[in-house]
Amino acid sequence: MINRLVIIGVGLVGGSLALALRQSGYCREVIGVGRDRSSLQRAQALGVVDRSELDACAAVRGADMVVLATPVGAIESVCRSLRGCLDEKAILTDVGSVKGAVVEAVQAGLGMLPARFVPAHPIAGRERSGVEAATAELYQGRRVILTPLPGGDPEACESVRGMWEAAGAVVENMAVGHHDEVLAATSHLPHLLAYTLVSSLSRLDEQEEIFRYAAGGFRDFTRIASSDPVMWRDICLHNKGPILDMLKHFGRDLATLGEAIDAGDGDRLLSIFQRAKQTRDRFCD
Amino acid sequence: MINRLVIIGVGLVGGSLALALRQSGYCREVIGVGRDRSSLQRAQALGVVDRSELDACAAVRGADMVVLATPVGAIESVCRSLRGCLDEKAILTDVGSVKGAVVEAVQAGLGMLPARFVPAHPIAGRERSGVEAATAELYQGRRVILTPLPGGDPEACESVRGMWEAAGAVVENMAVGHHDEVLAATSHLPHLLAYTLVSSLSRLDEQEEIFRYAAGGFRDFTRIASSDPVMWRDICLHNKGPILDMLKHFGRDLATLGEAIDAGDGDRLLSIFQRAKQTRDRFCD
Ligand SMILES: NC(=O)c1ccc[n+]([C@@H]2O[C@H](COP(=O)([O-])OP(=O)(O)OC[C@H]3O[C@@H](n4cnc5c(N)ncnc54)[C@H](OP(=O)(O)O)[C@@H]3O)[C@@H](O)[C@H]2O)c1
Ligand SMILES: NC(=O)c1ccc[n+]([C@@H]2O[C@H](COP(=O)([O-])OP(=O)(O)OC[C@H]3O[C@@H](n4cnc5c(N)ncnc54)[C@H](OP(=O)(O)O)[C@@H]3O)[C@@H](O)[C@H]2O)c1
Repeated sequence: MINRLVIIGVGLVGGSLALALRQSGYCREVIGVGRDRSSLQRAQALGVVDRSELDACAAVRGADMVVLATPVGAIESVCRSLRGCLDEKAILTDVGSVKGAVVEAVQAGLGMLPARFVPAHPIAGRERSGVEAATAELYQGRRVILTPLPGGDPEACESVRGMWEAAGAVVENMAVGHHDEVLAATSHLPHLLAYTLVSSLSRLDEQEEIFRYAAGGFRDFTRIASSDPVMWRDICLHNKGPILDMLKHFGRDLATLGEAIDAGDGDRLLSIFQRAKQTRDRFCD
Repeated sequence: MINRLVIIGVGLVGGSLALALRQSGYCREVIGVGRDRSSLQRAQALGVVDRSELDACAAVRGADMVVLATPVGAIESVCRSLRGCLDEKAILTDVGSVKGAVVEAVQAGLGMLPARFVPAHPIAGRERSGVEAATAELYQGRRVILTPLPGGDPEACESVRGMWEAAGAVVENMAVGHHDEVLAATSHLPHLLAYTLVSSLSRLDEQEEIFRYAAGGFRDFTRIASSDPVMWRDICLHNKGPILDMLKHFGRDLATLGEAIDAGDGDRLLSIFQRAKQTRDRFCD
């Protein structure tokens, strides 16, 4: 149970967590913090938070759980405004899509890494963002990855795990660097391919026609190119190494495919496509 | 109305056309042709065709409409077996995903291009293939592109249009070469990206883990990598030029993105992502 939960950044991810925890009765009070009064008022009107604050430092006093749910690029400045404000027993966590850079940002912002800071990343999302897109069901059955830091407080880690389980999620632990590599492969690379494809096609002369003949497969394939550009800029800026590695790995394989097409090497093409189909059919149903 | 329809290759695409036309009462009799007796028997048992034949030449006698619905790579040999067999008034059409190569294959196989040959491509499909995956609804509201040849018989073209409209489709005309360029962009390139991504990830050491953390976005993004490898090998072999052009165009844009990430150029990244999101939101809902 959480007595006072503070969500800093009440958008899709933070708002959905607040809704899920309120609905399950897992926390007594939810306070929303933001930089913009009108969006906080909408959050309150939608029943996502009990009350709201523009002053993060004032808001976190007396809180037992503080969740950083702004874009990753805002975390350092938010943490700077929290210097000296957190109660000693307060647990600090986040929802950022990258973990190494968030740990650095918290350290830089607060001037230290609190033992009760537990980095976390819910593997759930939608293309729409903002508090209007928040739903209590977003995390139902979805994975949340915790990346506890060496020397961190195990009890804080258990509390963050309990919070996500109350929101319906399945929680697992991973090392920070490993998280960033796995997510670069499984999430960041696909998003970058979808964005590049649509932007690439949009520069062709026949773009109107091209999109007119796009069938269902194309819609599904490019759905993630409708994701929030600010969030994805931040992810690229903050997970540079692993993303560049994956782009290189993919680029090499795409070049190999091009060579097989150029050479008319049907056997090679068939074996690439078969391997991909087998892998996907095995992992996704 | 069609009196006797012959479908050569009673799989997903040919079988779905047969089902739709039988259901709408648009044709009196459907004959299925294939190379394998057992799959033809399944087609008959499923009510997709009235009767079936292994001998294509015998099957097409007396037919007023003959549809080539095998993989593209089989069209030339199928047409060779049809030399001298088609009635003078018979209309010949196909469903191949590429058009330039099909026209060449028909010409090579028959030794000439009949005036009543109308190349066609239904923009509809599924990841599953074979006659078991066929449904009468596959073409409902979907586009079919006809690529009539210079000097072709306009009446034959109208008949093929009428057939697809009876199956529920919206029919449009396009030049052969233009079809192959548009489809390279809108369908072939996305499939190759999806196949390459999955095959690329499947070669990483952490592949088990990677696919375990793949969320909904990844499933949608890679769905088309579950498509039929033989069909996609044939498409690559038979639409080489336009596909290689698109791969080059995309490869350059992906390299530019990599450079922006490497340089930490947030403004450039944001503008690429915004352009893509705007384009996709405009064309797909
Ligand atoms: N969307 C996903 O699919 C997904 C999935 C997993 C994790 N994440 C992570 O979740 C975090 C939030 O993403 P989201 O999708 O929830 O985005 P969102 O819907 O845009 O929400 C972000 C919230 O942060 C607020 N905010 C922005 N800058 C701020 C600042 N400087 N100070 C205080 N509040 C600020 C925004 O409020 P105003 O703009 O109204 O001020 C908004 O309420 C990101 O770190 C992202 O990496 C996202
Ligand atoms: N699937 C799509 O998304 C899609 C969309 C638009 C157009 N197309 C085009 O439609 C055509 C068929 O694709 P599909 O998805 O329907 O494939 P499919 O389900 O595998 O059907 C192909 C059919 O052709 C038969 N066949 C194969 N080789 C043959 C040969 N040498 N002689 C006679 N029959 C032969 C197969 O029968 P057996 O193997 O049992 O002998 C099978 O019944 C392809 O040209 C493809 O480019 C496909």
